Amino acid sequence: MKIYLDCYPCFIRQALHASRLAGGNFNQQHQVVIKTMTLLGKLRLGITPPEMACQVHRIVREEISATDPYQEVKHASTQAALSIYPKLRQIVANSKNPLNTAIRISIAGNIIDFGISEHHHDLWQTVEKVLNQKYEIDDETSLRLKLQSADHVLFLADNAGETVFDRVLIEQLPIPVIYAVKRAPTLNDATIEDALAAGVDFVAKIVDNGTDAPGTILSMCSPEFIGIYKTAPLIIAKGQANYESLSDAGSKIFCLLQIKCPVISKDIGAAVGGIVIRQSASD
Amino acid sequence: MKIYLDCYPCFIRQALHASRLAGGNFNQQHQVVIKTMTLLGKLRLGITPPEMACQVHRIVREEISATDPYQEVKHASTQAALSIYPKLRQIVANSKNPLNTAIRISIAGNIIDFGISEHHHDLWQTVEKVLNQKYEIDDETSLRLKLQSADHVLFLADNAGETVFDRVLIEQLPIPVIYAVKRAPTLNDATIEDALAAGVDFVAKIVDNGTDAPGTILSMCSPEFIGIYKTAPLIIAKGQANYESLSDAGSKIFCLLQIKCPVISKDIGAAVGGIVIRQSASD
Repeated sequence: MKIYLDCYPCFIRQALHASRLAGGNFNQQHQVVIKTMTLLGKLRLGITPPEMACQVHRIVREEISATDPYQEVKHASTQAALSIYPKLRQIVANSKNPLNTAIRISIAGNIIDFGISEHHHDLWQTVEKVLNQKYEIDDETSLRLKLQSADHVLFLADNAGETVFDRVLIEQLPIPVIYAVKRAPTLNDATIEDALAAGVDFVAKIVDNGTDAPGTILSMCSPEFIGIYKTAPLIIAKGQANYESLSDAGSKIFCLLQIKCPVISKDIGAAVGGIVIRQSASD
Repeated sequence: MKIYLDCYPCFIRQALHASRLAGGNFNQQHQVVIKTMTLLGKLRLGITPPEMACQVHRIVREEISATDPYQEVKHASTQAALSIYPKLRQIVANSKNPLNTAIRISIAGNIIDFGISEHHHDLWQTVEKVLNQKYEIDDETSLRLKLQSADHVLFLADNAGETVFDRVLIEQLPIPVIYAVKRAPTLNDATIEDALAAGVDFVAKIVDNGTDAPGTILSMCSPEFIGIYKTAPLIIAKGQANYESLSDAGSKIFCLLQIKCPVISKDIGAAVGGIVIRQSASD
């Protein structure tokens, strides 16, 4: 998905929020906003939103602090998710259709997204909603078919905390899972540290994709990750940024996400607030 | 009130929305966004949001169309308000405290604001809410006192459609009213044409302030308007943009508004969604 003009104000809002999380003073916040606008002014229009987001968050780190502004937020998200993890497992255990329920729980966890909203969410309320929600796009049947023939799945992670919800889904997958996170911090995206904090190492092999970018920008990924990506018979890609990078990257990819912004809503053809299992366009 | 960094993304969103309303194609929308960011990049930090908004909407008119992008939206707002005008009058007629009720109705009309939201609102629902809402800031007693001693009031209008709600309040004011609108279009702000469409000429003398800017930017106003402003013993100023321009311009000014954005909320010290009658700081 290519960047829309509607993404421009959103990047500036995000840059400002990240600057504040990083503890920037007014002048530093102002500089980040100015530099983000300069970058947007020179932007090549064909790029995807995650490519731009990656650069925005680099500006914040350069201008204010090299450490991760979202560290505390990510820790809090993981702790909040872990606190309901036993209940999430119980719901799956009691379900007549455990895989369907576990997919829904993984999608519910996608509510954790500090690129879109600057507040913590009521996780439990979201779980209850998503468990009974009608899908806006539902390619679950195709996903199940692929799960029968594939010998493993590459699972592209999204945000810290959401990792706990993904763990619940991974526990229900009938084949081995490689769980790919970011090599370095960007937004509240999960790194290896966040995946470990969620206990994903108990259920999957964790790798990083070599980048400090949201989504999966293949041109930036490490050769090791590209190898894993190319040989994967099936890919589950979580969240909006992965949709933005891989929406037309081939039919072995299934995007699981909540629609959280009007731009994605328009691009994917589903209402804001909706839930989606979407097989990417054939390559 | 000086511009906040949080206003920057909002201006870009507003510029894009206005470009689309003006019928701009993608390249024109892109140019408007680029020029707005360039302007924001050079911005003197001490200016008020309406000074910036004025320039943003000039860019839209220069790049896309000299005609008013908000003409249809304004017409629709006025028609929607006129359709409930008889019911609004009836509510005041049945009220035990007609002035208090009429002030609330005028504030309810402040929900019409295409600078903040890009959608039409449920006017009647807003009226019912505001009629029973507790004020976040309530200087009604001071306003009533001023109304007893003043020989006339200068009423600074805000948006088209809101004009109809203002008319209901003006009908209850015990002294003559001068109703000031914008000389030329900016955002969905009322011009003389919009005030006439609302029938304000039946209850007040209508003047324009000489500008094409939201709020009341005194440095841009005509000498005739400045004369009216200076000699007015009492000023009622509607909406956020008037608050932004006149929040500390003297105790003869009373701002009547709904709090519709987090920046104003922080500046004025009242929750988003709240209603306010606020006497400006003494000069």
